[in-house]
Amino acid sequence: MNDEMIVRSGLEGVVAASTALSGVDGEAGELVIAGFPLAELAPNATFEETIHLLWKGDLPDADSLPDLRESLAAARALPPMTLQLLREAATLRLPAMDALRMAAGTLITTPNDADPAREGIPIAARVPTIVAAYHRLASGHDPIAPRADLGHSANYLHMLTGSEPDAAAVRGLDTYLNTVVDHGLNASTFTARVITSTGSDLVSAVVGAVGALKGPLHGGAPGPALDMVFEIGTAERAEGYLREKLERGERLMGFGHRIYKVRDPRADVLAEASEKLFEDGRDRAIYLLARDVESTALRLLAERKPERRLQTNVEFYTALLLHGLSLPTELFTPTFAVSRVVGWIAHAFEQRRAGRLIRPQSVYTGARDNRWIPIERR
Amino acid sequence: MNDEMIVRSGLEGVVAASTALSGVDGEAGELVIAGFPLAELAPNATFEETIHLLWKGDLPDADSLPDLRESLAAARALPPMTLQLLREAATLRLPAMDALRMAAGTLITTPNDADPAREGIPIAARVPTIVAAYHRLASGHDPIAPRADLGHSANYLHMLTGSEPDAAAVRGLDTYLNTVVDHGLNASTFTARVITSTGSDLVSAVVGAVGALKGPLHGGAPGPALDMVFEIGTAERAEGYLREKLERGERLMGFGHRIYKVRDPRADVLAEASEKLFEDGRDRAIYLLARDVESTALRLLAERKPERRLQTNVEFYTALLLHGLSLPTELFTPTFAVSRVVGWIAHAFEQRRAGRLIRPQSVYTGARDNRWIPIERR
Repeated sequence: MNDEMIVRSGLEGVVAASTALSGVDGEAGELVIAGFPLAELAPNATFEETIHLLWKGDLPDADSLPDLRESLAAARALPPMTLQLLREAATLRLPAMDALRMAAGTLITTPNDADPAREGIPIAARVPTIVAAYHRLASGHDPIAPRADLGHSANYLHMLTGSEPDAAAVRGLDTYLNTVVDHGLNASTFTARVITSTGSDLVSAVVGAVGALKGPLHGGAPGPALDMVFEIGTAERAEGYLREKLERGERLMGFGHRIYKVRDPRADVLAEASEKLFEDGRDRAIYLLARDVESTALRLLAERKPERRLQTNVEFYTALLLHGLSLPTELFTPTFAVSRVVGWIAHAFEQRRAGRLIRPQSVYTGARDNRWIPIERR
Repeated sequence: MNDEMIVRSGLEGVVAASTALSGVDGEAGELVIAGFPLAELAPNATFEETIHLLWKGDLPDADSLPDLRESLAAARALPPMTLQLLREAATLRLPAMDALRMAAGTLITTPNDADPAREGIPIAARVPTIVAAYHRLASGHDPIAPRADLGHSANYLHMLTGSEPDAAAVRGLDTYLNTVVDHGLNASTFTARVITSTGSDLVSAVVGAVGALKGPLHGGAPGPALDMVFEIGTAERAEGYLREKLERGERLMGFGHRIYKVRDPRADVLAEASEKLFEDGRDRAIYLLARDVESTALRLLAERKPERRLQTNVEFYTALLLHGLSLPTELFTPTFAVSRVVGWIAHAFEQRRAGRLIRPQSVYTGARDNRWIPIERR
């Protein structure tokens, strides 16, 4: 029945989908988002424009952008059932990603044949509200209601802090959200496509993807890179600290990537965004320290493992940028989800159009002819 | 970077896992469950024994079976948060599988390194409670509390109806649950493995799998086969009805399977179980009619499409057996989940031991060099 019985347990090298959403070239260090080189799109677009690009295939014009912004803004408030569940989750002190998965599972959408992209709006609009409301509840505060007059990024920061962010912060967050919105068939995106391939609904696809994103092997955990910078504390300590770590055979968090063999293009975009964000003095000391740690780490890695070509990865600058936006580390992965959910939804739409069940084979390795033995004789 | 650029959009013929849990041979019409040919296991085991077999690798002995039964029985009651969510879902008249996905998402488990299988117990124990409680709520009744003195199958039927089922019904349900507990890398099981492969938790894997099972292409929809029997109504009408349907080019629900080219071994086991269940007179008229519809359908299919070798599939007898247990059609897919969740959990455990991220490739088909255009010029 199987064409071949080679077991590809990680599906490495197996091409499971054609996509017009993003293209990753690890050897060249290139990432294309729906036609745009990342560096062309991320620092320029608002996140709403990126949503339009991924769900509709092009950038919105002066008519369609306000419409999309308004639809998203109007859909931000959470149903009472969802908010109640978040309150219970906070009482149980659940991790933020568990709370997000639970709460996202209570969302309800309706397919829209005339304009399929509309179905994604309540999800993309409410994931930030869920994350922000849970963060408030988990830290003993009341949730802050969304504001319909703010853009997607500004409103998210508002719901976290209660104050309206300045333009630099909004630009920083938009750039971050644009940068991590899609990245080929990573495990969470693939999960969304497998679920969608059965003809299931959009919320099921997103909930499954949140579950996959939670896993530590997914690679969306920027916290540890920043923890290391904090631990080092001052520039003088960087070299000694890093040398010791490398001598103990430990991995340096924030460096190296499974796919990128040269510098991760997302790291470049986020490095530039960080530089701009920290220009105005917000916690500039930590920024300068991080840059120092980075250059020391790269020098030591090149010295010790030149063949590995290890480079700063997206986690390093994600951590720095999100710290510059005053986000605590426990919000890093949920904020990644605020962006990536838009990619998941885009892939679900694309998978629907492909219309094909994803159903691999397995090879059975167990016994075949056991006979039943009643319990008295076992 | 890719070994090959052949797009395998359904992953057909790609072997994505080695498993000792189940082996499907579609050409031979054979299904092995953890060492036992299906016909050897399904009519003999209680569902608790099958759980032990799949999670621990062997049948329980006289010491371990009572322990497993008690652990499952003790874990059946739902947390207040889960029950509250089901009440809300019933108010919104959500489909049963949506309610199941939402409610399953609120379960919480703790990994147990000393005895990994224990982590599955609260999920396997509570999925039947969720399904039964929601069925009661959706039909305007209060949920019925689980009874710890009953086995898994007996308690499920008790929670649905409020009365203790007779031995024939319990045997019928045990046989059904054993029969559909695992079936290679179907889309929901594969979803559970992809999510687990990121290092994520067991509840995330199960919730993702429920989402995949919901999809109509998953193939777990036995309702329509029975609807057809009801529509036919009397044996004399069978041939005319079926001929007309075939002449209109319609598919006969309950016949043919994507994988099995001969008779689905699950259909045989469930046919025998149905025969026994209907022996004592419960709705025997519908049983006889169904057998008549089956033989007429097989005769017509052999006449018209001999090359297709179409046979009665698992859905046909699932529908008949579950009807014999007085389950309404809206409970068919959720009851499938009551069984299959045990297979999902077994695969999650197996995937944890494999310890490898499942991460296929995609091929990018879009443009690459678009330049940013400000909105005023679009």
